[in-house]
Amino acid sequence: MDNSDPSPEYTMVISSPDRSGLVAAVASSIAKHGGTLVESHNHTDHQHQWFFMRNVIGGAPSFDRESFCKDFSDIAAEHAMEWSLSDNDTPERVVILASHASHCLADLLYRWKAGELRCAIPCVISNHENLRSMAEWHGIPFHYVPVPKTDKREAFDQMEAIIDRHDADTVVLARYMQIMPPHLCDKYARRLINIHHSFLPSFIGANPYQKAYDRGVKLIGATCHYVTTDLDEGPIIEQDVVRVDHSNNKDDLVRLGRDVERSVLSRGLRYHLERRVLVHGNKTVVFT
Amino acid sequence: MDNSDPSPEYTMVISSPDRSGLVAAVASSIAKHGGTLVESHNHTDHQHQWFFMRNVIGGAPSFDRESFCKDFSDIAAEHAMEWSLSDNDTPERVVILASHASHCLADLLYRWKAGELRCAIPCVISNHENLRSMAEWHGIPFHYVPVPKTDKREAFDQMEAIIDRHDADTVVLARYMQIMPPHLCDKYARRLINIHHSFLPSFIGANPYQKAYDRGVKLIGATCHYVTTDLDEGPIIEQDVVRVDHSNNKDDLVRLGRDVERSVLSRGLRYHLERRVLVHGNKTVVFT
Amino acid sequence: MDNSDPSPEYTMVISSPDRSGLVAAVASSIAKHGGTLVESHNHTDHQHQWFFMRNVIGGAPSFDRESFCKDFSDIAAEHAMEWSLSDNDTPERVVILASHASHCLADLLYRWKAGELRCAIPCVISNHENLRSMAEWHGIPFHYVPVPKTDKREAFDQMEAIIDRHDADTVVLARYMQIMPPHLCDKYARRLINIHHSFLPSFIGANPYQKAYDRGVKLIGATCHYVTTDLDEGPIIEQDVVRVDHSNNKDDLVRLGRDVERSVLSRGLRYHLERRVLVHGNKTVVFT
Amino acid sequence: MDNSDPSPEYTMVISSPDRSGLVAAVASSIAKHGGTLVESHNHTDHQHQWFFMRNVIGGAPSFDRESFCKDFSDIAAEHAMEWSLSDNDTPERVVILASHASHCLADLLYRWKAGELRCAIPCVISNHENLRSMAEWHGIPFHYVPVPKTDKREAFDQMEAIIDRHDADTVVLARYMQIMPPHLCDKYARRLINIHHSFLPSFIGANPYQKAYDRGVKLIGATCHYVTTDLDEGPIIEQDVVRVDHSNNKDDLVRLGRDVERSVLSRGLRYHLERRVLVHGNKTVVFT
Repeated sequence: MDNSDPSPEYTMVISSPDRSGLVAAVASSIAKHGGTLVESHNHTDHQHQWFFMRNVIGGAPSFDRESFCKDFSDIAAEHAMEWSLSDNDTPERVVILASHASHCLADLLYRWKAGELRCAIPCVISNHENLRSMAEWHGIPFHYVPVPKTDKREAFDQMEAIIDRHDADTVVLARYMQIMPPHLCDKYARRLINIHHSFLPSFIGANPYQKAYDRGVKLIGATCHYVTTDLDEGPIIEQDVVRVDHSNNKDDLVRLGRDVERSVLSRGLRYHLERRVLVHGNKTVVFT
Repeated sequence: MDNSDPSPEYTMVISSPDRSGLVAAVASSIAKHGGTLVESHNHTDHQHQWFFMRNVIGGAPSFDRESFCKDFSDIAAEHAMEWSLSDNDTPERVVILASHASHCLADLLYRWKAGELRCAIPCVISNHENLRSMAEWHGIPFHYVPVPKTDKREAFDQMEAIIDRHDADTVVLARYMQIMPPHLCDKYARRLINIHHSFLPSFIGANPYQKAYDRGVKLIGATCHYVTTDLDEGPIIEQDVVRVDHSNNKDDLVRLGRDVERSVLSRGLRYHLERRVLVHGNKTVVFT
Repeated sequence: MDNSDPSPEYTMVISSPDRSGLVAAVASSIAKHGGTLVESHNHTDHQHQWFFMRNVIGGAPSFDRESFCKDFSDIAAEHAMEWSLSDNDTPERVVILASHASHCLADLLYRWKAGELRCAIPCVISNHENLRSMAEWHGIPFHYVPVPKTDKREAFDQMEAIIDRHDADTVVLARYMQIMPPHLCDKYARRLINIHHSFLPSFIGANPYQKAYDRGVKLIGATCHYVTTDLDEGPIIEQDVVRVDHSNNKDDLVRLGRDVERSVLSRGLRYHLERRVLVHGNKTVVFT
Repeated sequence: MDNSDPSPEYTMVISSPDRSGLVAAVASSIAKHGGTLVESHNHTDHQHQWFFMRNVIGGAPSFDRESFCKDFSDIAAEHAMEWSLSDNDTPERVVILASHASHCLADLLYRWKAGELRCAIPCVISNHENLRSMAEWHGIPFHYVPVPKTDKREAFDQMEAIIDRHDADTVVLARYMQIMPPHLCDKYARRLINIHHSFLPSFIGANPYQKAYDRGVKLIGATCHYVTTDLDEGPIIEQDVVRVDHSNNKDDLVRLGRDVERSVLSRGLRYHLERRVLVHGNKTVVFT
């Protein structure tokens, strides 16, 4: 990821009703403003007659973001497009919520440090203290917000305040074992990412590894998804599995599952940060 | 699989409460009778205190099956073992039930002809006529048994008669879309193998590909399992998955799923025929 | 693949030096002629400054192929594009060459019959007689062309004549174990597809499974590639692997490898027939 | 891995010429001394007539290690067995050599801290300073041993002294980019583990990702192997691959490869530490 080329690039995503000529309209507008398509994906969902597009636009200095956006607004309005254009040099701000388990947080911090994740991590929030030194060794502030068994409202208010104070674009639940209250699911819709420790929709709810062990499945998995108020039912971003057999007891499943969880969460977050994920209804288009 | 060595081999499987010394007792008995362990697997389920063993025994002509079995009966009785010893040169008799879809039947017949499946296939039964020529080209009798929408009893009686007349050891539901009546599930317990077109326990029941498409999963799969009276809940023998994405419509899932179904069923049946699958409770031990 | 919509679709592929505005130019031209983008992929190889695009175009009856092609020729000339537009309803003609092994041929014929491969198969050619009945049961003429150990020229001349008489667009070597003479590699360049029974570039040349067994690798694979005069060095279309372990002897590797070979060849051919594969230098772009 | 049961377990590995009755002899001897088989694997290589066995033995306090070993020596001598029995509570001492790249070291340290690797890590040695703080944060001493371009002898002498002073059982090359001198390969034979950043035997030598990119392969991989004096030719312990496509440039391959490297190395080391890996000739038996 050595970015020796200093010229800025932008990522544009579009979601709209499908019509004839949309690729032409978008690409022509970009070309007219001197932009180049570094990368361009599109997809038409023929069942729902919906169009999705993602463009990475280069071409500076000839390409001027502001004048392009001004012009493009008319095209977008004409075609009822939901769209955005973001500067690739302005990383998203990602607040990570963790609990006691370290594997997902450790992996995210490792990849962030290695430059694999295009984001800033303004802070880590946890209801346990044990991951503080890991966060702080990476130079990231750590906030301890204990969550009582009953009446969790104050704790979630406190977290919300921290998240907002840090100006988070995205919130990641890195095996944060608390159920998010509905008003936060709504407030952070499409920006709140969870890793579920099963291959959804198998083993919805608690203790999926125990359930998988009891059922005798031959593969276990993990699911990265956007959180909605329907528990474990939000749009799926990424999934993967690993093979297990009769010789693996429940502890083995937990151990093997950790590897799948952390890689699925990291991939899912990476796709999200690079704006490769477009949500429509309860499903995602992921341009990889 | 060219078996230039004509000396017979036997496959012995054992399932029993776990005790100290079981491997020693079994292996010593085999050695005492001049048998050699061509292959030997064992597993202890420490949670349920249960012991599983599979041995492929060679050593002819010194190893005499009958005298071994006579002696071993005492050991088995002493340790409360459920056990069997079968001659690898006596293939199982497998009756295949198919419906309209050809992919699983085609794959099984191809592998049988290629010598990959250690079995005889005395007949194929179907509630449609369209696969007759495929079966007959392979030299296998085909029985057409239509199943009416209501009052299916007579049809299932007819099938049962055919299965029994052909002296079937194992019955395979190769995408046979009818639900087996409970009395046949019981009669053919642990000998009735189904391929379910989803990664169970996801998408139990009908139309799993439509459900998978609607849910937006990123992997689809198939499950080979023994049939029990609990629909889609029997012991799982084998599973596998394939990656899909937003560009795959429901027809694509069906097409991609066919490949997983046929390979999972073929592997599962292969394990079963080679007596690699031991059932305990609702789970399997598969010695691969 | 039930194609209830009778309106024609076209697949257009483009390969050209990269320039600004290519997507806009192509998409605008299609839109101008009333075409719709059923599917559209593009890729820029920034290292080689090369542009690749594949469009599936609908839009009949407003879209007229001839007038579009006439107009597009000017655009193509201006941008030095290599391009083609083919009618999806006109299947390619694929001649299959096989030897003694049945697995790849059986799989291709099965998929062709199931409607998974968009092609006609005018004939099968083999240097053995054993696969005749399989081809003929599928209704496909079979030509037996024995290849002597020395002086194979006449045999290859005969094959060439058959291939050309059948007007083949594509020739598939379905585990055809003879090395194609250079003049045929050149004549059928980018239309001659082979399946190699190893994960290239591992184990180039003969007996890859023996070599894999001797080396003790933990995965074996297969490679589908275009044939060039450099043996086993042509552009790779598709590859896959399967896990093996110490318990697998060489015969097991051959058996497990057959499954990978047939699925890799079928996928590779499918991509080729749907014009998803664009070759540049010795590499491929595969739009899946 | 919470080991609430304090009774000791032992791992026994055996490698010997194959003979009839070996499993019986070993299992009977263990049973006679009151040992139980917590886990037991064996394998016969019929081609080389060689026998391999691994037993995890419990049964304390009745099982006495010393008296068992004394008795078993006679059996071992009779059957020309190479064997060992180690206490599972005495972790191996693993010295890790790293260079500039952090991913493998980070993963090993993470897993060690998480209790996934049954070992002590007395120190990390590197020819760069940049990983010092990572090692030291984990509480592990870090030794900086620069290696000059020419005349590396003194550096390797220094490393050897550190390794020996720390009483290392196993030495891991965690992307240590220096070629080990032959006398150290011999000295640490079967105890010196490397991760090679390709799917061997593809792309032997330097710059495998560049070579993979240039060849246009569709999967890249990594190989964990014991180091011998034949560079990249030692016995393979574990391998894995990940899918890539035309959209991945060389930097992407490096990034994707890092994930495969670290998981393959961690799995390989885990198998080694649990004595699941038996070497015979240039191949391994891995009892997983």
